[in-house]
Amino acid sequence: MRESVCADDAERLIKGLLNQERTALARTITLIEDESPCAEEILKEAFRHRGNSKIVGLTGAPGVGKSSLVDNLVSIIRDEGSTVGIIAVDPSSPFTGGAILGDRVRMRSRTTDEGVFFRSLASRGHLGGLSRHTGDVVTLMDAFGFDYILIETVGTGQSEVDIMLYAHTVVVVLAPGMGDDIQAIKAGILEIGDVFCVNKADHPGADKTVSVIESMLELNKDWKWKPPVVKTVAAEQVGVEDLLEQIKSHLEYLRANDLMDKRVSRSYRASLEENIRRETVDKVLRCAIKDGVLDVMLDEMLKGKSDPVTCARELVRKYLCGKEI
Amino acid sequence: MRESVCADDAERLIKGLLNQERTALARTITLIEDESPCAEEILKEAFRHRGNSKIVGLTGAPGVGKSSLVDNLVSIIRDEGSTVGIIAVDPSSPFTGGAILGDRVRMRSRTTDEGVFFRSLASRGHLGGLSRHTGDVVTLMDAFGFDYILIETVGTGQSEVDIMLYAHTVVVVLAPGMGDDIQAIKAGILEIGDVFCVNKADHPGADKTVSVIESMLELNKDWKWKPPVVKTVAAEQVGVEDLLEQIKSHLEYLRANDLMDKRVSRSYRASLEENIRRETVDKVLRCAIKDGVLDVMLDEMLKGKSDPVTCARELVRKYLCGKEI
Repeated sequence: MRESVCADDAERLIKGLLNQERTALARTITLIEDESPCAEEILKEAFRHRGNSKIVGLTGAPGVGKSSLVDNLVSIIRDEGSTVGIIAVDPSSPFTGGAILGDRVRMRSRTTDEGVFFRSLASRGHLGGLSRHTGDVVTLMDAFGFDYILIETVGTGQSEVDIMLYAHTVVVVLAPGMGDDIQAIKAGILEIGDVFCVNKADHPGADKTVSVIESMLELNKDWKWKPPVVKTVAAEQVGVEDLLEQIKSHLEYLRANDLMDKRVSRSYRASLEENIRRETVDKVLRCAIKDGVLDVMLDEMLKGKSDPVTCARELVRKYLCGKEI
Repeated sequence: MRESVCADDAERLIKGLLNQERTALARTITLIEDESPCAEEILKEAFRHRGNSKIVGLTGAPGVGKSSLVDNLVSIIRDEGSTVGIIAVDPSSPFTGGAILGDRVRMRSRTTDEGVFFRSLASRGHLGGLSRHTGDVVTLMDAFGFDYILIETVGTGQSEVDIMLYAHTVVVVLAPGMGDDIQAIKAGILEIGDVFCVNKADHPGADKTVSVIESMLELNKDWKWKPPVVKTVAAEQVGVEDLLEQIKSHLEYLRANDLMDKRVSRSYRASLEENIRRETVDKVLRCAIKDGVLDVMLDEMLKGKSDPVTCARELVRKYLCGKEI
């Protein structure tokens, strides 16, 4: 019964999505976030209609000014007559009760602009859950038909790198006084940058930061596309046109060299892995929690009667392949 | 044949590990990193012998000075006559060819000290791979019998939060000028802190950073353990004794309130999930790559003939449960 209700809903939502109805897009993203069974049907269909958006990821440490940079990019993109969907991946905090208010209200001034769609994705406390739905939401926005999709992440860890796999072009944003520290290089995010942006370039040390990045880039002699380093002062709308030009150049480079498929393939690979995880790890844990088996096992492990290696094997056998433990 | 060779090796290594032979520990960690089939046997045994170490995680954004803080903590712990194992989780960079040299050489001055064991774990390019082996290495070091295990991560993302699940006590390290920005709160790592440390406390703005953290902590009225905020200047060995005292107080609090099991259970939960992932996602992807099925599927997806949702389901059926697609 529930399945048929869901199927109807899915069909209506897909139609709405492809007709560029914003309410359908918003509703569909919510279904994805709630991991509703309807979401899957919609997603499968959305995959058939993707492929028209320019997907740009922006990432960097907290405080470098990504939000105002994104705001500026959106303005310029809109002035050019293009549409844009923005996904802000936002760790939720129990201190503030979910996504940070600042982000939620940030785009309010644009809510009357039909050419802009903003969505903030929070982690909702999943282990490793930060990037879980990003790929899906990108696909939905792509099927909807935005000219640009901007993915903004806050942080410098592995999950931010993972999220950037969904982008065609990755912009790594730094600020003066952060890039000149060897610790900053350790963040692991630098090697995925297609374009580097030193924001707050009116602050002291901006040129030093630029030269540190450039000398790091020099370490690789085999660049086919050598990432440009752009200086911006987003708070004063300085340099952002240039940043967008460099992003466009990179997209053009991908197209001219038949490399776009490689980037799209990278995002499919990430989506595939995420979907395998849902079909396996998530399913096993969900069943084990529901049956109370997880608690029993944790208790046995605490008592030293079992260990995670053995328990994991038992759970996989039991819940994925229907074999009794 | 290979399995029996492995079994002998495993037995010898376990014996060495429990006899506190450093070479056995080093070799075992390498087996874990290489995902050798021998590693599993050793791990299962190690789980039986764990439970004696005080496990402390230290995390924070790049540049806050975690490394010198850890160096200082190690000195004080050694002066007290206790032993310590250090795990630095370190995103590798193609620019520098693996883990950052700085870290590798950092502990060289201590290599003659039998009471200190330092190991840097790099990601080796796995998707989401940063935290993969941390839990296992903690278990090995615990079975070896260090009094303290310090886990140091660089970054502010979800993977750092995941890694911290393996610690009894989590120290979140900040520096002045970073904590007073709402962006910094977004990093999602603050809510897991048991102790907050404002390092570089001789820099301007330290008191402001402390008061921002404290006012954030005020948002939760129901603290049973209200995280203390400690000021340190690790570069000048100032305040680190106090930090260690606060760490000990937190461990004492966990013990006195029967909460230690809850923390250990949290780490078992994380280990279990990691092991389920190995048994499922990793296995499926490994098989699909080996058979060339992954490339075929990616190609089909690029041509719009399939999608990640469908492909994931097919792969799980084929490789986990032995059913043909």
